[in-house]
Amino acid sequence: MNTNHHPDLAELTTPRLLLDETRMDRNIQRMQRRIDELGVAFRPHVKTTTCVDIARRQAAAGARGITVSTLMEARMFHAAGFDDILYAVAIAPARLDEALELARRGCRLTLVVASVQAAEMVTAHGRAQGHVHDVIIEIDTDGHRAGLNPDDAALPATARALTVAERGGARLKGVMTHAGSSYGLDQRDALIRLADVVSVGSTPTALAAMNLDGVTEVRAGVYVFFDLVMAGTGVCRTDDIALSVLTTVIGHRVDTGWLVTDSGWMAMSRDRGTQRQAVDHGYGLVCDVAGTHIPGLSFAEANQEHGVLHWQGDPGTDLVARFPVGTLLRMLPNHACATGAQHGQYTVIDASAAPVATWERFRGW
Amino acid sequence: MNTNHHPDLAELTTPRLLLDETRMDRNIQRMQRRIDELGVAFRPHVKTTTCVDIARRQAAAGARGITVSTLMEARMFHAAGFDDILYAVAIAPARLDEALELARRGCRLTLVVASVQAAEMVTAHGRAQGHVHDVIIEIDTDGHRAGLNPDDAALPATARALTVAERGGARLKGVMTHAGSSYGLDQRDALIRLADVVSVGSTPTALAAMNLDGVTEVRAGVYVFFDLVMAGTGVCRTDDIALSVLTTVIGHRVDTGWLVTDSGWMAMSRDRGTQRQAVDHGYGLVCDVAGTHIPGLSFAEANQEHGVLHWQGDPGTDLVARFPVGTLLRMLPNHACATGAQHGQYTVIDASAAPVATWERFRGW
Repeated sequence: MNTNHHPDLAELTTPRLLLDETRMDRNIQRMQRRIDELGVAFRPHVKTTTCVDIARRQAAAGARGITVSTLMEARMFHAAGFDDILYAVAIAPARLDEALELARRGCRLTLVVASVQAAEMVTAHGRAQGHVHDVIIEIDTDGHRAGLNPDDAALPATARALTVAERGGARLKGVMTHAGSSYGLDQRDALIRLADVVSVGSTPTALAAMNLDGVTEVRAGVYVFFDLVMAGTGVCRTDDIALSVLTTVIGHRVDTGWLVTDSGWMAMSRDRGTQRQAVDHGYGLVCDVAGTHIPGLSFAEANQEHGVLHWQGDPGTDLVARFPVGTLLRMLPNHACATGAQHGQYTVIDASAAPVATWERFRGW
Repeated sequence: MNTNHHPDLAELTTPRLLLDETRMDRNIQRMQRRIDELGVAFRPHVKTTTCVDIARRQAAAGARGITVSTLMEARMFHAAGFDDILYAVAIAPARLDEALELARRGCRLTLVVASVQAAEMVTAHGRAQGHVHDVIIEIDTDGHRAGLNPDDAALPATARALTVAERGGARLKGVMTHAGSSYGLDQRDALIRLADVVSVGSTPTALAAMNLDGVTEVRAGVYVFFDLVMAGTGVCRTDDIALSVLTTVIGHRVDTGWLVTDSGWMAMSRDRGTQRQAVDHGYGLVCDVAGTHIPGLSFAEANQEHGVLHWQGDPGTDLVARFPVGTLLRMLPNHACATGAQHGQYTVIDASAAPVATWERFRGW
């Protein structure tokens, strides 16, 4: 647990969100190559990162446009020069004025609806404002998400509400679905055949797909960082994970074999995404300050401020001597989106774990 | 689901954290009365709220000093005029300079340690800097938290490390424990008998305690808002809960009987604290815009952006007609600390659910 090799990290206060730039760049290149091989466009989902610096790396690698999950992200990224934005959550009617404002400032903003009612509201809003909203319909191909069931009669009705020519106000660009490559999107369906855009997610879809016939673009977000859930599904290795939480040992319970740290769920999030996987990593995988996994320490409990690490190694180990108060550790997250959202910035580190930059994240709606 | 009675709320975008000022004031008065009856001092924990406006109400009601969980909170509240602050998390050695800086700016800051090592580090830091840190030792009286076991030989050793007179650098003020009134604090113990401060938490402790003999102050935080976990333990009623998340219906799945909303775990947090209670409220209790519980709607699933509400009422109900796209709902949180931490501000509403103010929250460390 000697921190002498990382004098810069040792000077930082904790909890702190670390971003390994080398791993991130490798992940960005890997995904872009993969999508290029599949012969479709790539529109990264920036909700995972909410960081202009990272989105610029994705664009430089070949991404076209971005996907956002809030209009706040749309505004922030548009202000930073991104002008092709898919707002991939069905819009609330009260947000239509904000969307119009963004479009009028030059943003090529695409909206999403998943109901006849929303389609009618978007169309009516566009007509009333003398604007044509670009719209995509969300379809649920794996049966447990937002979006219309492909077999639902509401699907063609929603498409009709957006395309009745004399009404104006909206233009139906295509369809999107979260998972499953083109599975569930019936290529014989008139809606799919006529769509300019058939957009699919996610990171596992993008990395597992053998064939994206009929698909025009892929969305993925978490691949930039990867996380323990992704590693648990086999789409990355633990040492691809670019995000970690720098943490300090602040106490011991020698009687129970616990280390107490300053990173509870406020720093890690409440996400326990590996709980149902083959290997449950608790609140995160415990590594030393260089990023190497420490066998025997399990991040078993967390309250708001404290992480509690249970020692499951040699019971004769002197925990106080091996992990003294002040020891820095790094925790790999279960779910990069959830852990990232607990922090307002990234401390970017290079391959030798030296801090090289601070990048801001957005939060809010 | 008519929103005509709440024209102001209907103009707000969602997700949005609402704070019912009337309920909050009632909760503040109730707790202060209770602590006054017990004859001890009250030091509210402001980590739940991280809001100066709220802490001022608590002070006006009779609270003395505040409890914080980060030095960032200490800095922000000190800048707002609070000068008696207990930083109730064992301090990381790298943070001692920050603590000193606060003390030198006039903050009466009390630190916490829970190990001999930390006590020695605090003492050495104080001596090196010509400062005497005020310190409290954390004791774990319910067996599963940070803090020393009262029976651990490290407890008197930690006290000695802070009190060896010729060393200076620190002053041992007393002890704190999270739960359990004075249970677990043996009044015959020399440390307890000599302590100026015996500080206990939490909201359930404060409301359940019959007798706080030997205790000098009580800490509690969540009582300001209460939440479903507190209601599940019986220390409040559902209609005491002052915090909710304003939410919009953005779609339906008629085939499965679902409403889709714009408030997923990003707005509610991942906290599923009622899962192990007698009544599991999923990701939150679903109310109409006036705050009245809607029987039949269960907040069963959440992803980052979407809440999925399952209809369990009359299967003949036309969900699209009853809860059209754009319908506003209010979600009561499982855990007010976790839900609050997902938001940067409060929209304060009066007893008629009209917005009357916006109050800022802090985040970070």
